[in-house]
Amino acid sequence: MIIDIHGHYTTEPQALHAFRDKQLAGLLDSARKPATTDLGISDEALVKSVAPQLKFQKERGSDLTVFSPRASGMAHHVGSEAISAEWTRISNDLIHRICTLLPENFVGVGQLPQFPGAPPKNCIPELERIVKELGCVGVNLNPDPSGGNWSGPPLTDRSWYPLYEKLCELEVPAMIHVSSSCNPNFHATGAHYINGDTTAFMQLITGDLFKDFPTLKFIIPHGGGAVPYHWGRYRGIAQDMGRPPLKELLLNNVFFDTCVYHRPGIELLLKVIPADNILFASEMVGAVRGVDPETGQYYDDTKRYVDSIDWLSAADRTKIFHGNVAKVYPRFKARA
Amino acid sequence: MIIDIHGHYTTEPQALHAFRDKQLAGLLDSARKPATTDLGISDEALVKSVAPQLKFQKERGSDLTVFSPRASGMAHHVGSEAISAEWTRISNDLIHRICTLLPENFVGVGQLPQFPGAPPKNCIPELERIVKELGCVGVNLNPDPSGGNWSGPPLTDRSWYPLYEKLCELEVPAMIHVSSSCNPNFHATGAHYINGDTTAFMQLITGDLFKDFPTLKFIIPHGGGAVPYHWGRYRGIAQDMGRPPLKELLLNNVFFDTCVYHRPGIELLLKVIPADNILFASEMVGAVRGVDPETGQYYDDTKRYVDSIDWLSAADRTKIFHGNVAKVYPRFKARA
Repeated sequence: MIIDIHGHYTTEPQALHAFRDKQLAGLLDSARKPATTDLGISDEALVKSVAPQLKFQKERGSDLTVFSPRASGMAHHVGSEAISAEWTRISNDLIHRICTLLPENFVGVGQLPQFPGAPPKNCIPELERIVKELGCVGVNLNPDPSGGNWSGPPLTDRSWYPLYEKLCELEVPAMIHVSSSCNPNFHATGAHYINGDTTAFMQLITGDLFKDFPTLKFIIPHGGGAVPYHWGRYRGIAQDMGRPPLKELLLNNVFFDTCVYHRPGIELLLKVIPADNILFASEMVGAVRGVDPETGQYYDDTKRYVDSIDWLSAADRTKIFHGNVAKVYPRFKARA
Repeated sequence: MIIDIHGHYTTEPQALHAFRDKQLAGLLDSARKPATTDLGISDEALVKSVAPQLKFQKERGSDLTVFSPRASGMAHHVGSEAISAEWTRISNDLIHRICTLLPENFVGVGQLPQFPGAPPKNCIPELERIVKELGCVGVNLNPDPSGGNWSGPPLTDRSWYPLYEKLCELEVPAMIHVSSSCNPNFHATGAHYINGDTTAFMQLITGDLFKDFPTLKFIIPHGGGAVPYHWGRYRGIAQDMGRPPLKELLLNNVFFDTCVYHRPGIELLLKVIPADNILFASEMVGAVRGVDPETGQYYDDTKRYVDSIDWLSAADRTKIFHGNVAKVYPRFKARA
C-alpha cells in the first residue's frame, strides 16, 4: 500500500476556471457575476479530468492520493472574504465529488476560506463542513493569506488558536501550504512555496504551540522547505535560544513530505529526519511536470528516489509509504 | 591556504552600538544626535574585539577571513537614506581599519547605503570609495532593503543595472545577503536569511541578468538557502519554463558558500553543485554559536564537515578552500 499524501487538483475542467473569471469580474462589474454556483460539470467530466493522476498512480505504483484543490488556485488574497468563502466551497465540493466517484484512488483534503486580516476562526464553519459532511481527512492551511506580502501574524499568534482547537477536536492535521504570490519578488513554486515551509518551521521553533495543543499535527510540504538541508542550523539556533531539542519541541507534531525532486535531496531528508516524521508524497501533477534528462524519468516521480535508497530499513520504508498516515490523519484510519 | 569568504564583524565594540543608538534617537529628538562620527575606538580596542575570530581561525585551521560588517546590523530599512549612508560609511571604515591592522587575517568586504525605495545607483559613490580607497574585494548586496517586507523590485529589475555596471567595472562580486527582519513572520537568521537566498536564486532563473552582465558575479550565502536541497525542483522549473539548463544559465556567475551546519547538508551541497561554484565559509562568529552535543564540535566549524567528505578529490578540495577565490574576487588576487 503506497499513499501519496500531497496531490492537488491541477487538472480542473475549464468550467471551474470560467466560473472563477466571472466571480472576480463580478467584483468590478456586477453584471458579470456568475448566475449560479452550479458549474454544470458532469461526473463523467470529473473522472476524465483526473485521468493524468490515475495514469501516474498506475505507472509509478502508488495506490491512493490525498487530494486537495490546486494550491496556487486558493489565492486567498484575491477579492473579498465572501469571494474566498464561495470559491473555497466550490473547490472543496469538487474534491469531494472526485473522492466519492473514485474512492479507491483519492481521499479528500480541503482548503479554508482564509482572507488577509480576517480572523482565522471565521474558517471554522467550512472546516466542520468539509470534515463532517464531505469526509475530508485533513486541511490545507495558508500561513500567509496575503499572498507573499506576509502582512498577517505568525502561526504562533493567538488569533489562530480557535482554528487549532477545532482541528484538534475534529482530529484533522493541517498541511501548511501557501498559495500564489502577488509579490513580484517571489516566484510561486520556486520561492514562495519553499519560503513558506521554511518560515513556518522557524515560527514553530520560537513559539510554544504544541504545549498548548499537544495533539495538533502539521505537515510541512516540499520536503520541509530548506529545513532538512539546514538541520544543523535549526538545531543550533534552537539551542542558542535556550529552546528544547527540536525532536522534543516539534517532532511529535510536525511532519515532512517527500516532495523533493532528485535523489540526493531525498537521501538527505531520510538521513536527517526520523522516518516517523516523513510521509510519502509527489505533488503530482504539480510544480514540476517535465522529465529529467539526466535520469530519463519524471522529476516528480519521487517513489523512484525513495526506492533507490538501499540503506533504508523495510520498517522505515513502510512507515514512509503508508504506516505514518494513520497516525497523522486519524480520520484516514477511520475511513479504511 | 584556507580562505573563509563569509565572516561578519559581530563582535563590535560597544562604542559602535552607542553611536547607532544616538544616531537613531537623533531622528526623533535632534538633541540626541551623536556629536561626532569619530567613535573614539583605538586600534588596540579594534584588535582586541576580533580576538574571538582570530582564536577560531587558529583552532579550526583557516588562514584568512573575508570580513564584512554585521549583516543584521546593516538594517537598511531603519531611519532614512542619509542615516543609512552615514551608518554604512562608519561600518565600512571599521572593517577597513581591522583589515589594515591585521592584513594576514582579514580582507574587507563592505556594505552598501541601500534604503527602501531609493535607487540602487545611489550606492555607487560608496561602492567606489570602499573598493578604490578602502581596498574592499567585494560587497554585500541586500536583495530586500525593506527588511522582510519585500516591497522593492526583484534583482532582475532594470533599476539595479547601474549598480551592476559598476560592480563589473570595478571587478567586485556581490554576496546577496539580506539584513534584519522587521516582519514578525520572519526570524532573521532562521527564516529571512535562508528565504533571501532562495528567493534571489529563483529571481535569477526567471531573468536574463547574466546575458546583460556576463562578468557579474553573485555569491549566494548559507549554502545557497534551499537551492541545493531542491536542485531537482529548480532544474525542473527552469526546464518547464523553457529556460536553458541551470549550469549554462547561472553557473558561470553564481556561487554558493559552505555555511551549512551539519555534515549531511555539506555532503549534499558538494554532491549537487560543481566544486567550481563552491567557496569555503563558516559565517563565524555568526548565526549559530553553540557546540553540537551530537559531535562535541561547534555547529559552525564547517571545515570539519568538508574535511570529512572522503570522496571529494584533492583538486576539488583545493578549489573550495581557496582556488575559486581568485576567480570570484579578482581584486583578492591583485592584493595577494
